[in-house]
Amino acid sequence: MTTTETDWAKSTPTTATGWLARAAEVSALLAVDAVQRDREGKTPHAEVRLLKESGLVTLLGPVEHGGGGQDWPTAYRVVREIAKSDGSIGQLLGYHYLWFWAARLVGTPEQVLAVEELATKNQLFFGGAVNPRDDDVVITDEGDTIVYNGRKSFSTGSKVSDLTVLEGVLEGTDKHIFAIVPSDSEGLTFHDDWDNIGQRLTESGSVTISGVRVDWASAAGYVDKVFTPRVYNTLNVPTIQLVFVSFYLGIARGALETARAYTVQKSRAWLHGGQERSVDEPYVLDVYGDLTAKLWAVEAFADQVAAEGWVIHQNPDVVTERERGEHEVRVAAVKARATEVALEITSGVFEVTGARATAAREGLDRFWRNVRTHTLHDPVAYKRREVGVFVLRDEIPEPTWYS
Amino acid sequence: MTTTETDWAKSTPTTATGWLARAAEVSALLAVDAVQRDREGKTPHAEVRLLKESGLVTLLGPVEHGGGGQDWPTAYRVVREIAKSDGSIGQLLGYHYLWFWAARLVGTPEQVLAVEELATKNQLFFGGAVNPRDDDVVITDEGDTIVYNGRKSFSTGSKVSDLTVLEGVLEGTDKHIFAIVPSDSEGLTFHDDWDNIGQRLTESGSVTISGVRVDWASAAGYVDKVFTPRVYNTLNVPTIQLVFVSFYLGIARGALETARAYTVQKSRAWLHGGQERSVDEPYVLDVYGDLTAKLWAVEAFADQVAAEGWVIHQNPDVVTERERGEHEVRVAAVKARATEVALEITSGVFEVTGARATAAREGLDRFWRNVRTHTLHDPVAYKRREVGVFVLRDEIPEPTWYS
Amino acid sequence: MTTTETDWAKSTPTTATGWLARAAEVSALLAVDAVQRDREGKTPHAEVRLLKESGLVTLLGPVEHGGGGQDWPTAYRVVREIAKSDGSIGQLLGYHYLWFWAARLVGTPEQVLAVEELATKNQLFFGGAVNPRDDDVVITDEGDTIVYNGRKSFSTGSKVSDLTVLEGVLEGTDKHIFAIVPSDSEGLTFHDDWDNIGQRLTESGSVTISGVRVDWASAAGYVDKVFTPRVYNTLNVPTIQLVFVSFYLGIARGALETARAYTVQKSRAWLHGGQERSVDEPYVLDVYGDLTAKLWAVEAFADQVAAEGWVIHQNPDVVTERERGEHEVRVAAVKARATEVALEITSGVFEVTGARATAAREGLDRFWRNVRTHTLHDPVAYKRREVGVFVLRDEIPEPTWYS
Amino acid sequence: MTTTETDWAKSTPTTATGWLARAAEVSALLAVDAVQRDREGKTPHAEVRLLKESGLVTLLGPVEHGGGGQDWPTAYRVVREIAKSDGSIGQLLGYHYLWFWAARLVGTPEQVLAVEELATKNQLFFGGAVNPRDDDVVITDEGDTIVYNGRKSFSTGSKVSDLTVLEGVLEGTDKHIFAIVPSDSEGLTFHDDWDNIGQRLTESGSVTISGVRVDWASAAGYVDKVFTPRVYNTLNVPTIQLVFVSFYLGIARGALETARAYTVQKSRAWLHGGQERSVDEPYVLDVYGDLTAKLWAVEAFADQVAAEGWVIHQNPDVVTERERGEHEVRVAAVKARATEVALEITSGVFEVTGARATAAREGLDRFWRNVRTHTLHDPVAYKRREVGVFVLRDEIPEPTWYS
Repeated sequence: MTTTETDWAKSTPTTATGWLARAAEVSALLAVDAVQRDREGKTPHAEVRLLKESGLVTLLGPVEHGGGGQDWPTAYRVVREIAKSDGSIGQLLGYHYLWFWAARLVGTPEQVLAVEELATKNQLFFGGAVNPRDDDVVITDEGDTIVYNGRKSFSTGSKVSDLTVLEGVLEGTDKHIFAIVPSDSEGLTFHDDWDNIGQRLTESGSVTISGVRVDWASAAGYVDKVFTPRVYNTLNVPTIQLVFVSFYLGIARGALETARAYTVQKSRAWLHGGQERSVDEPYVLDVYGDLTAKLWAVEAFADQVAAEGWVIHQNPDVVTERERGEHEVRVAAVKARATEVALEITSGVFEVTGARATAAREGLDRFWRNVRTHTLHDPVAYKRREVGVFVLRDEIPEPTWYS
Repeated sequence: MTTTETDWAKSTPTTATGWLARAAEVSALLAVDAVQRDREGKTPHAEVRLLKESGLVTLLGPVEHGGGGQDWPTAYRVVREIAKSDGSIGQLLGYHYLWFWAARLVGTPEQVLAVEELATKNQLFFGGAVNPRDDDVVITDEGDTIVYNGRKSFSTGSKVSDLTVLEGVLEGTDKHIFAIVPSDSEGLTFHDDWDNIGQRLTESGSVTISGVRVDWASAAGYVDKVFTPRVYNTLNVPTIQLVFVSFYLGIARGALETARAYTVQKSRAWLHGGQERSVDEPYVLDVYGDLTAKLWAVEAFADQVAAEGWVIHQNPDVVTERERGEHEVRVAAVKARATEVALEITSGVFEVTGARATAAREGLDRFWRNVRTHTLHDPVAYKRREVGVFVLRDEIPEPTWYS
Repeated sequence: MTTTETDWAKSTPTTATGWLARAAEVSALLAVDAVQRDREGKTPHAEVRLLKESGLVTLLGPVEHGGGGQDWPTAYRVVREIAKSDGSIGQLLGYHYLWFWAARLVGTPEQVLAVEELATKNQLFFGGAVNPRDDDVVITDEGDTIVYNGRKSFSTGSKVSDLTVLEGVLEGTDKHIFAIVPSDSEGLTFHDDWDNIGQRLTESGSVTISGVRVDWASAAGYVDKVFTPRVYNTLNVPTIQLVFVSFYLGIARGALETARAYTVQKSRAWLHGGQERSVDEPYVLDVYGDLTAKLWAVEAFADQVAAEGWVIHQNPDVVTERERGEHEVRVAAVKARATEVALEITSGVFEVTGARATAAREGLDRFWRNVRTHTLHDPVAYKRREVGVFVLRDEIPEPTWYS
Repeated sequence: MTTTETDWAKSTPTTATGWLARAAEVSALLAVDAVQRDREGKTPHAEVRLLKESGLVTLLGPVEHGGGGQDWPTAYRVVREIAKSDGSIGQLLGYHYLWFWAARLVGTPEQVLAVEELATKNQLFFGGAVNPRDDDVVITDEGDTIVYNGRKSFSTGSKVSDLTVLEGVLEGTDKHIFAIVPSDSEGLTFHDDWDNIGQRLTESGSVTISGVRVDWASAAGYVDKVFTPRVYNTLNVPTIQLVFVSFYLGIARGALETARAYTVQKSRAWLHGGQERSVDEPYVLDVYGDLTAKLWAVEAFADQVAAEGWVIHQNPDVVTERERGEHEVRVAAVKARATEVALEITSGVFEVTGARATAAREGLDRFWRNVRTHTLHDPVAYKRREVGVFVLRDEIPEPTWYS
């Protein structure tokens, strides 16, 4: 990424359209050296700083504290825009939005206000050491404080974050407790062991947690050591899944636009095909038309489901289990479609760029590697099954901490 | 269709939601004997009467004349809802909406007002003998009147209509002239030669046109024998293509819901599969989940593109060629997706209903036959190509009379 | 079918190539009025007579009794060739071959010799009232004879057959007993209730069986009322499944060739496409190329698996459970591929013939209806699963009477 | 690759089966450090030595000179077997076979004998600087010798080869002349600029050719400076395309087997799925069954087409243009299927291994990268088109030097 002299603060956007334009500017900057960054596996300190300076990290923050005051549908589109140039940074930003919002999902009203003010005013960036799939972090109750000990296999973004969301299970119970701690807390050790084929800059390595202490008052959603779940809190799965969808779609669009530029500028028409230019070859037009139509359809679907979700986000106290469940089913469906279409696009674009586009310096494979890696977060077959169960048996999924 | 005692006029809907509920009621009535009607190839007089009595035919008509005053996005959804139960009736209604609207696409302001008042007040049903692909109807200029002579291979709905839109080419020119005439005009002979594998009740047979006279004043868009096209008029292709999309999606949903009812009520789990009920079989859940997700995605895409189109419909005088062209590209994309997904669903549902669902009395094949028949109206490959040309060469399609 | 003056007996083929040429001649005769026959739902007496006169019914019969002395791989190809023109007749012939061969699968050596001599010398045509899925026919033991009573939902071909294979369960046991009886036995009543969307001429209606008596000596495989299964008998499932594959592939090829003739002779190039002839349109070439490649691949796979199976058929006494199981897995795989490709082709050909090819008189939909109907015989998902279980868990399927 | 103490020479195979077993042994050795080798981009000197020591490089060589005396169908299967473990080495071996055979395609009878003796006796490994697509190497006629000057963008294998096939255009003509020269010829400079996403060890970088002199007597197929093409020589395209198919299929099988081992040993069943083991999850079984069936089908197709080709290879003097053309069409079809299925498998296996299988150390992405890279050698769309043109217009492709 080239350094930038832009003084972003001069003109903070005030509308969704304005924020999307801002995201596009940031995305263009990220695109400049995205291939090189990916190859070097560089820790994205500069990129996170750009997200802060441009105001994108506080997009969801209250306007009174300097935030953008935007809604989730806009946040999803911003993530798409960023992921178009750099899937890793898109994921980091999307996860940050979720952790930033996490207080609203599980916190008390006071915690929500406090966290949002703190994070917005200081443009703090969130990472997470959360994986309720495994009971690998134990919490001990020491009176006024709780203490986290253990290890998480994955802690996306923590190394480049200011705050880390911890999650563990209270000893002798099955209670998962979330808390926000400084990422430079003494007991946190981030291991540089994320070496995967895609999303290489997400710093998703493991973390060791040794005696990290948190006040009970900071245990998200706990009052007098008792956790009263609101219906609302169960939006964590639909929200993070829509974040996933957002960067899948962004990466797919990035692949399509990068390929398009290549085809226009560099591809040679096939010598036996009868066309002078690659952009006139029937099969090339067909593939671009097909892949574009597929992407547009899923983008529209994602927009529609995001709007449905925002209605629920705005009415946490009146939403019914059924409404929440139907929304999760819709999210499962869009996740399935986004996964399939993003894979098809990111592998398919090679057909219409040609053999020389496989040169490593072009980096055209990073889109497939990125989508291929993260779409395995949870098996998409179970998402289709969730939709099938709903359609056939009229059953909604049970809320879980993890999907 | 069973006769109905419903007094629809008692409570005319006033909102889009209300009209969609009305369409659902009508659709349920149409569903009762849809299979039998299809097998008998019955001319749908009663069904068109139902569309009139329920008020659906005047959905787009001005409120002051007793119409619904609704917009195209709602009309498209109404077509979907009707096509769910009977693809032919959905097509008839969709084509009717287009012909009803045709004055706005090519007429003078006075013609628009006159046609809409006449058709709304009298609940007139439109058919069309229009096919600008072939120059098979010749118009001769006889001073104050023009005279149509020739033959059209297809005239959807004419036999059950009150008014027919004629189209021909003015002798010695390449001018296409449209005019609306009574369907019982002496010179019109509808031949009962529509015998195709699908959309069997659309009465799409050929028509002979012998000396049908129309005042020049009724020649759509002509003033003193001169036609001044507005940009707006070129919306005919995007609008009719979205009508197509609407009944494809409606038919696909009909297939999915009919299959669902069958699976739930009649399917037997495979004897070697280990499940008691078909609705618990993993592959059954997977297929329903997959097909539902695909349908939802295209429905969302169709909704989004319909909304984009409505903005243009409302601003006929300011829309630019570029805006119009980009819209047509979006429509081409949704047409491609709707075609592919509707074919996949209508053939695929058999996998999850089982062998006995192929009994002719179930009529489960009508969905595929209906979609397969109409999706060939124009080759979908050229729709993908249109999208590809736009994406790669930044060219928009030229407006045409026909696609 | 037009009557034919061919004196087939004059020159009986002696090689596989000769028999395939003979099948091609018969197929051409069947093609003449296949569409009309399908629409009328005519009982195929004349067509079965043609199969007899041409010698195809005794293809597998011993040469010394006037049979063709050919092997199963050739029989499968003959079925393909016939199904190309008429899927129903292809199925009837394929089932006939299986019943003809059934003695070898479950009979005693003496029964094999007797049945093959009888059927070959007299050119007898077989039907079957066999469906081990349901225990709907009860056999009572009356000393020297057994008596069948009950009902079978499906008895393919029986109405046009000379002999019918009965199957039932011996009262008070779980023994399935097969026997061959004259199709005009007094106690057999064939109901004309096969009215399905495809394979309409297979006469697959239900049959009532009332007191049909068979000597114990004719109970297939029984000696002194004891049944000793050979490993060999468990080839029934792989063999009939390869028969299915054969007529699926034949129907698919019929669709492709019929479509080809239509495209070449009747299709019009799209008016906005820039080509004069449909056979020059890029998308048309692409679709034909793609579908042909897919069909060729499965045909080759079917040939390979048929050859593998013939090795086992020839060595019934030494084949191991493992060898037999691996063969069934291979058959399951080819069944899955044939199903998917045949469906894709029979629906896809419409894309490249165009709208007018949906005229009912063209009958182009019969290919899809035929494949769609029979491919539901057993859920193809379980075939994929069978392959998956083998690959992943190294387990072979257990032999069953039915799949 | 671990060094091996195997004394391959002790027991040279004498049958196709024996050679395939030998190839399997070599493949197993190559598999040991294939991931590491790919990551390091190591020049495969040791691997080529293994191919020599094991006798595989002389598989097609005359028995009297110590070669294997095998046919192309066997050579294709050997390439598959090697590519299963290492796609690059599979490609190198396949290209070697083609260059080894090239004399037969374009040489004089004397040249054929001489080259085969030389190469077999000395176990020489071939590379090639051949790309008739571009006229980038100029040949000047200097009386008894010709001199090559120019540059080729790609020269697969040259750096690890003993002999290099040069190709260029004779100045002032459109004659392509091939000749075999020592790879260490003074005028040949191999540049280490092959840095692509897949097939990383094929040493396919560019080469500069400066004044490389060859006797006219060594100009392949030239007698007295006149080139008389035999029909036979036009088999170069079908033969190399079947080589491509062989390593695509080998790589696909490698992906499937590597994934299988991972799923069995390391995958965890999804926590909400209800199964203990991943190998029992329905979607996992379905995917393995589906991908395996698809691979088996294309393997069978490739075997069938290879056998057809071998008939032509054996009868170079009697083969007709039509026979040759029909074979090329069949090859085009199998190329299309192999491409599509190999891409589907190499990307799809991730679905059934899970998130942790994206760790870079697993190297599971190399299969997709390898297939994705080489399948762009020539656009597969033109292969489908070639099949379509044959089917629809009954035209065979014209022989070319390059496809």
